[in-house]
Formats: sequence, C-alpha cells, structure tokens
Amino acid sequence: MKSAILELENKGRAAKEATKRLAYLSTDIKNRALSNVSRDLLSRKDEILAANKEDYKEAEAAGINAAMLDRLLLNEGRIEAIAGDVLNIAALPDPVGEVFDMRTQPNGLLIGKKRVPLGVIGAIYESRPNVTIDISSLCLKAGNAVILRGGKEAIHSNRALARVVQDAIVNAGMPDGAVHLIENTDRALVEHMLTMRGVIDLIIPRGGAGLIRSVAEKATMPVITGGIGVCHTYVDESADVAKAVAIACNAKVQRPTVCNALDTLLVHADIAGRYLPAIAAELGKAGVEMHCDERALAALKNQAGLKLVPATDEDWGKEFLSLVAAIKVVDSLDEALAHIARYGSGHSEAIVTEDYSSALRFLNEVDAACVYVNASTRFTDGAQFGLGAEVGISTQKFHARGPLGLKELTTYKWIVFGSGQVRP
Amino acid sequence: MKSAILELENKGRAAKEATKRLAYLSTDIKNRALSNVSRDLLSRKDEILAANKEDYKEAEAAGINAAMLDRLLLNEGRIEAIAGDVLNIAALPDPVGEVFDMRTQPNGLLIGKKRVPLGVIGAIYESRPNVTIDISSLCLKAGNAVILRGGKEAIHSNRALARVVQDAIVNAGMPDGAVHLIENTDRALVEHMLTMRGVIDLIIPRGGAGLIRSVAEKATMPVITGGIGVCHTYVDESADVAKAVAIACNAKVQRPTVCNALDTLLVHADIAGRYLPAIAAELGKAGVEMHCDERALAALKNQAGLKLVPATDEDWGKEFLSLVAAIKVVDSLDEALAHIARYGSGHSEAIVTEDYSSALRFLNEVDAACVYVNASTRFTDGAQFGLGAEVGISTQKFHARGPLGLKELTTYKWIVFGSGQVRP
Repeated sequence: MKSAILELENKGRAAKEATKRLAYLSTDIKNRALSNVSRDLLSRKDEILAANKEDYKEAEAAGINAAMLDRLLLNEGRIEAIAGDVLNIAALPDPVGEVFDMRTQPNGLLIGKKRVPLGVIGAIYESRPNVTIDISSLCLKAGNAVILRGGKEAIHSNRALARVVQDAIVNAGMPDGAVHLIENTDRALVEHMLTMRGVIDLIIPRGGAGLIRSVAEKATMPVITGGIGVCHTYVDESADVAKAVAIACNAKVQRPTVCNALDTLLVHADIAGRYLPAIAAELGKAGVEMHCDERALAALKNQAGLKLVPATDEDWGKEFLSLVAAIKVVDSLDEALAHIARYGSGHSEAIVTEDYSSALRFLNEVDAACVYVNASTRFTDGAQFGLGAEVGISTQKFHARGPLGLKELTTYKWIVFGSGQVRP
Repeated sequence: MKSAILELENKGRAAKEATKRLAYLSTDIKNRALSNVSRDLLSRKDEILAANKEDYKEAEAAGINAAMLDRLLLNEGRIEAIAGDVLNIAALPDPVGEVFDMRTQPNGLLIGKKRVPLGVIGAIYESRPNVTIDISSLCLKAGNAVILRGGKEAIHSNRALARVVQDAIVNAGMPDGAVHLIENTDRALVEHMLTMRGVIDLIIPRGGAGLIRSVAEKATMPVITGGIGVCHTYVDESADVAKAVAIACNAKVQRPTVCNALDTLLVHADIAGRYLPAIAAELGKAGVEMHCDERALAALKNQAGLKLVPATDEDWGKEFLSLVAAIKVVDSLDEALAHIARYGSGHSEAIVTEDYSSALRFLNEVDAACVYVNASTRFTDGAQFGLGAEVGISTQKFHARGPLGLKELTTYKWIVFGSGQVRP
C-alpha cells in the first residue's frame, strides 16, 4: 500500500507539473489531441475490446447483476459512439483565454478577468468505462490535468483506454502527465486521494448517492456533487390538461433511468378530477406503476389497466429511476411549494400552468438547479441547454449549478495592466 | 454540550427557514434593514461598549498580547466607522435577481440563469468584533442567512452586536432567524457546525492560516479559503527603475500587516546593480529589514543605513506581515516564474517591466488570483477592483478567486420558460 500511495503522489506531482503547460496550450493542439484520441480509439479497438472481455468475464464470474454487466460492456458500436463524442468535444469552443469584465479604474489601472483552467481534476466513478474517455476529453479541452479512479470491475478496460488517451495526446504535443489512471483499486487509495489538497484542485464523483455523499464528506478539496434528482412536476389548477399530460408523461417515460426523470407528480385538487384519469391512462399504457396518495387513489381506483399502489411515506422524496411515479393531490400552490422544498433534491422542478402569477411564483420560490414552466424536466442536460457536452449536473449551489459544461471546468484570474500605479 | 448542539441545530433550521423569504426580499427592505442596523449601532453604543469592556477586561486579565487587545477593542470612533461601512454596503447594487445568458433554443424554450442567494452562510472568525457586523451586512445584502461563530475573547461584544442586528432587521421586515450567533464558544460546536451539510451552504473562515486550513479540512460543505498572501514583485531586466522602486516600496511599506503586501522581491541580475541600491535606500528609510540572498547581500553590504540579514531557506514563501522583505537576484524571467510557482500562495504577484513579451508571459503563466504588470500588489482589494465592499480574498480557484464581493455570495438557478415542450 505504501508504494501505491507513493505512486499516487508521484502522479499528482506530474499532473500538477503538466498544468503549467496545459494552461496556455493553443486550442489547435488541444483539438488535435482529441481528434487523435478519437482516431486511436477506433484503430486500437481490438486492444480495448480484449481488455474489456477480461473485465466482463471476471464480473460475470463474480455474479454481478445484468444492469451492471451492461454498463461495463464495450463493443464496436459503443467504441464508435465514444469516439464520436470525443470529436464533438473537440468541436466545442475553447473556454480558456476568454477575457471579460475589463474596466479602466479611475487611477488608470485596466483590471479584468481571464478564464483559465482549474488545474488538476480528480474523477472518482463506478464501472462505466466510457466515463474514462468522457471525463478525460472534457478536462483536457478545458486545459486541465486529470487523475482518474474508475471502479475495480472495469480496471482492465480503463487501463487500455487510459493508455490510448495518454499516447494520443502526447503525439499531438500535449504534455506528458496530463492524464493519469490509478491502477490499484484499493479503497485506501481513494481515501488518500481525498486528502491531496493542494495537488488536486477539484474532485468530481460520478455514481450513486452513497459514493457522492462519502466523497463530499471526506474530501479536503472542493467537490462537485450532483446527479441525484428527485424531480417534481406540479399541475396547477389552471393547467392546460393536454400540455400537462404530455409534459408529465414525457418527464416520466421518455427515459426513466436518469436523474431528470419525474419522480413525484403533484396535482391541484381542483383539476385532479379532469387531469388524473387522462395522465393515468397515458402512464398506464407505458407500464408505469403509480404510487398514489388517498385522494389520487380514490380518483383512479375504478379506471381499468392501471398499476396502482397506495403511497407510503417513503415514496415522497424517492428517486425511482424506473417506471414508477408517486402521485399526490394538493390543495394549493403553497402546498406544492412546501412539498418540493421538503422532498426535492434541488435538481429539476416543473410547474404546468396557464396562470401568470403562479408561473412567476414557482420560478421565484423553488430553490433548485433548474426550474421549469410548462416544459418537461427531461430537458435538464448540457446539450439541451446549449452547452454542448456536460460533465454532470450539479445539485450544489457553489461554483456552478445544473448542467456543467466546459466553462464550469475553468476558473478565472484577475489581470491588471498598470503603468506604475501605487496605492495612496 | 448536548443541549448546545441541539440549540445550534435549531438555529440552523431557523436560518434555513428564513432563506425562503430572504431569497426574494425586495432590495428596499434589505437596504432599510441595513440602514436600521447602522442607526442602531450608534443609538445602542453604550450597550455595545459596556459589553466590549467586559471582553477587554477578561482578555487583559488573561494576559492577551497588545495586538490582540487592539483588535478586540471597540470605542465610539470604531463603532461610527462600522456603522458607516454598513451604510456603504446598503448603497451597493443588489446582486440578487439579475437574469443573464437568456437564450431561446431551437425548440422555443427560453432558457437562462437567474442570480439567487447561496442560502445559509456560516462564518467562523477570531476576536475582531467588527467582523460580526461586516459579515452579517454583506450576507444579508446578498439575501443570505448567516450563522456567526466569533472568537471567545469577543463573546460579550458579539452578543451585543448580534442583538442589535437581529432587532434592527426584523423591524425593517426581514424574517426572524436571518442572523444567528453561536453563544457557546466551546470548540466542539465549531466541529459540529462543520458537519451541518445540507443546512449550511457555505463556510467562510476568517483568521490565521491554522484556522483556515483546519476548517477546510474538516468542513463537509463548501468553504471559501483565502487571506494568506505570499506576494512577489519581480523586477525584470527591462524595468523602469523609478517605477520599480515606487511599486516595490509601496507594496512593502504602505501597509505591511496585510495579505497583499510584498514578501519577496525578485530582481533580474542584469538590473540588480542599478536597482538594488535604489530600492534598498527607500526600504531602509522606511525601516524595512531586508533578508537578502548572497548576490543581493554582496550588492548592498557597503550601503549605509540598511538592516541587512542573510536570507535562509525559510524566508522564501514566508508571509512576513511586517516591515521585513526577502530579496533574491534571479538570472531570468524563467527563474522568477519558477520561484513564484514554488513559493507563491496564489494571491497577488507582480512584474515590473517595459518589455511587452515579458509582461504577457508573466500575465499568462503566473497562476495566482491577481497578476499585475507595473502596479503595486496592494491594489488587491474589493473596493480598489470596483466591487464596493469585500467579504475576503479567495486564494482558491473554485467558485471565485481574488476579492469577493456581494456577487460572490450568490449563485444562480436555471429558469426555463416553456409552452408545452417535451423531449423527443
């Protein structure tokens, strides 16, 4: 373990050293490096697939469940998709170097800010090998070095993928040491990584709620937490029923396994009689299991073809990540706001309404990364919001909130052009 | 202790509750609250001074040193100054509510960001009672609730000051529970405070390096660290000697006890023969003790009236906070950059040069919050940079860097105006 920790510290030092050149590398070199990565993922796919096969066999033998096996699996099609994503990142505008807020002060000092990389980013993630390429590409495009720690089930794949990236970027003129993989998957190394304040400037945990909480609590450096979405859609008494059906159904069924999918549907009592049968029919067709409070249950219990379950206290504030929705009838916008404040995770929240004042109150009063009027929460996504790619979705308030694009992987420094000024 | 922890948790809950109203309080109410605070600091000064007297007597009896006693002391003049600062904060523009980056996406969704408060801010500071008012005013103006934990030496003063603020703001229509003081100064409560993730959104530690490091390491929520400045001024071979003397002298002597004062002067060998005697004469007049490397010592040793000391390894990277400067002769801009990268604290760094390329290289390559060409590092300050007041100076890269104004005490949420959009 001692030697593995020493090796990790060496990687940290090498990454820090690499940041000096990464910080002012031309966009051309960064883009060339990424297009090399994309090309080599394809030309070296046999090496990658062979490594992935080893992981897959070991995971199968260990009796790992089908969903995890699927996340672990690479095949030609998936490698092509990953290679395509890298090219998309290369095509995005370079966030580094932007100069903004420049102003001449009364004493003649020209003061402003220049966008620069954050430095060294540590990524801790589970067993999806595509994250190795995804996070590396985003970090490199924003001029950062990266230290990767993927799940142990994917270690052979990650080693092969990291090698491809390391070779490809150095050939393009990027500094050696910009990308590191922690090859020893002992947990003690993660713990040590979280103490490397001063070397690692930011930690990004990607995975389940347990991983994220644990990293946030133990890390001595800044962390971007997110990805946990308990999302509500509130159907106001003045909602257009057709819109409200389309929006809530889309939020629940278009891709139920992701963080911006609907978890709880809140329905104003005065529209419940018209709205609930209509939405339940649509959700029922899609196979959604509905966990209903008493009033919703009463409204739907005679409707054929529905999977209805009486809601329990555990249903409120639960992220289902599947074809399950909780449904609750409320008596007012106030009650809906209170429910969201209590049970939401600060991710994405929507109101469906034709009432101007209700729309504005909801936008003002809901404290979440993304607040919607008359649209599906499924839009919470870097590409949909116009950021190109995304590193993740932040549910914390600090530094950046909601979809994190390349700009959110940067910081700024103040630059001051003087001509001999001193402070009186 | 158990009951004190319970009380702290109750304060946390009350603060969180208060944020709901604080978030969309009108600027008028916030400004009225601050002007009430300013007025009541003056009208209730007897109460404040009596409490401060108690602190002062206890501190004197405990044998606390003169500098700390001075920081602890309040008198009429100081209360007037504090009350004036509160009015200045009231006069600053309200950062909350700004809507920016609004764009209509191809699907018709109007998506943008709205600036909102961070929520509950925890402040941990030492024995300067003025920080109680200063931090409260800044947090409130930015729409945040605040939980204050000041040094135990100032507890009576802080209690009196917090009471004044609490009474004054409620009278103006701000929610009760916006400002809390932890009255039990047991260290265990600070430790507990640092675990209150989910209640406290941000911790701001103000004090010495030890306090800041300890808070950063233990806090489970985001922290803004800063205030430690190891600042270099590099005099390039092409520098204008008169400018370089004025700038370095100002950076060292104008106010030597603060974080943006000069610590180490780096001088290019080719200008050292002309520059060192000139700057040493000025620093000598101001009583500065110069810790010189061998070459600087050789250049100055025959000059009369100087306090010269041979530099040791401990002098590089030391924050002197007094009339002491380290002086080193370097052979190139590269050597200066390497020295700054190794020993700087990422606060403020300056080059004095008439060479265009050296100026740009220094601006590009130095990784610090504030990088100067031909100006004194003493300008690193919220007011000087045009931010009005400042909460502190961040030396971390995350969220905000350099002087922190009101805007840096806020975050944003994404707001989305739809008309029935669903994701295809």
